[in-house]
Amino acid sequence: MPKQRLELYRREVESFLEQCLDARRMPATLYESMRYSLLAGGKRVRPVLCLVWAELLGGDRQAVLPFASGLECIHTYSLVHDDLPAMDDDDLRRGKPSNHKQFGEAMAILAGDGLLTHAFELMLHADLPAERLVRAAGLVAGAAGASGMIGGQVTDIQLTGSGATNVEDLRAMHGMKTGALLQVACTSGAVLAGAIEEDIQRAATYGGALGLAFQVADDILDVVGDEAALGKPVGSDQGADKVTYPALMGLDKSKSLGQEMVAQAQEALQGKSGPQADFLSDLAQYVMDRTE
Amino acid sequence: MPKQRLELYRREVESFLEQCLDARRMPATLYESMRYSLLAGGKRVRPVLCLVWAELLGGDRQAVLPFASGLECIHTYSLVHDDLPAMDDDDLRRGKPSNHKQFGEAMAILAGDGLLTHAFELMLHADLPAERLVRAAGLVAGAAGASGMIGGQVTDIQLTGSGATNVEDLRAMHGMKTGALLQVACTSGAVLAGAIEEDIQRAATYGGALGLAFQVADDILDVVGDEAALGKPVGSDQGADKVTYPALMGLDKSKSLGQEMVAQAQEALQGKSGPQADFLSDLAQYVMDRTE
Repeated sequence: MPKQRLELYRREVESFLEQCLDARRMPATLYESMRYSLLAGGKRVRPVLCLVWAELLGGDRQAVLPFASGLECIHTYSLVHDDLPAMDDDDLRRGKPSNHKQFGEAMAILAGDGLLTHAFELMLHADLPAERLVRAAGLVAGAAGASGMIGGQVTDIQLTGSGATNVEDLRAMHGMKTGALLQVACTSGAVLAGAIEEDIQRAATYGGALGLAFQVADDILDVVGDEAALGKPVGSDQGADKVTYPALMGLDKSKSLGQEMVAQAQEALQGKSGPQADFLSDLAQYVMDRTE
Repeated sequence: MPKQRLELYRREVESFLEQCLDARRMPATLYESMRYSLLAGGKRVRPVLCLVWAELLGGDRQAVLPFASGLECIHTYSLVHDDLPAMDDDDLRRGKPSNHKQFGEAMAILAGDGLLTHAFELMLHADLPAERLVRAAGLVAGAAGASGMIGGQVTDIQLTGSGATNVEDLRAMHGMKTGALLQVACTSGAVLAGAIEEDIQRAATYGGALGLAFQVADDILDVVGDEAALGKPVGSDQGADKVTYPALMGLDKSKSLGQEMVAQAQEALQGKSGPQADFLSDLAQYVMDRTE
């Protein structure tokens, strides 16, 4: 069952995140604010992908853990900034007050900045060969930046409410906003393991397909999901005029697209075997099947 | 004359910054917003320090240029975020509308995030030995983060208007808020040059002293400077209840402290000679003597 194994890896990441901020080295409120969002729960999918791809290709999970956790810091900072009043203006995140609701707007901006910077500190201090660190961290910076995640958020804001979106634009936007970081979680794991280029490419294909499946599944869940399980109001995307796959292509075609991506992700694993390959294959399917 | 040489180095940085963002790879508005603040002028002190320290210790200026320019991206992002309504709420920056006044608050937050991330992309793609890049970029992440620049900004917000500040607290705050990045500009240059530990320590001492002198001089300029030359209203720090050196210890003692720091910076250069050493020595003095 991928859910149990996901939970196993997730706990390793969780306990690293628990102690990766040093309270003695920063102002108390900043520490509280960064920690609040970093430990607010979540599936920790990005660090888990990085760990498992590294392991699949011969890397050492413990050595990769600090780098993988950096990916979660980046994901968390993006949520903190996206929730700000000037952006999505969300009061709730995973059923709790969003960071700026709890600590004020200034502190939320700075906590986000702090988490983004901390990510690179963690990544660059992993005990791995410098050549691999430079390449992997460089890939992460590209994926998280203006031509990746941040560019995707800008495009999302511009598409929202424009009413002129097609599936291609939506896919390009998600490819940047959520796909790039999920993909680089896989490729950086491969790079850190010292994998050959062909295997790094497999990780890229898997991560790209998984990222799209993930987003399609999120959109579907927003239509059919259960409010309590999600921690945010069902239909909140529709309410904010968000463009979604079900809205553009209907629920059935959205499910088909998601399933197609699952198949593509699983194909990238062909020829690989063992528990990591099985887990990654099951995870791709689980992304589409999950109910929360 | 340090001012002419500073101008020479500054132009090299400027022309690199001109072409370091790729318009084809990101949404047009995000590109405009990032570029607007990155090319809004400024003395480019941080990249220049990095370049000159690298050169002084045998490094290649051209190879270090992308890394050095990353430091300017970090400095620029911090200005964009500090100007936001939730923070210092500044409408002007260097005589022009601040980023959020020009592009709106959401874009200013994202442009800042983009510049911070781009900094690491630039730094990690410099054509230098990986071991040096990892160490130097790791130092920069530490100096820019929650125990450095960001922590200093939080402390600054907390000190402002608290009315209970002493010189030690002010010095500690500035050491984080502005000192850490100026210092790491010097130390990263030394690391990238492949310098021995003793010389990296010299760079740290110089940068630490220069950082304090810089802040003291800024505070003094805010009291005695010329509005047009500064591009912001004179006395604006006092108006916002900012705690300054002149306010705490008077103008004369502030000048003495600044001059003491200049001497400490120059002492760190003892035994070094040549145009770079001369420039760094003159620069330390120039920081206190400048009128804008």
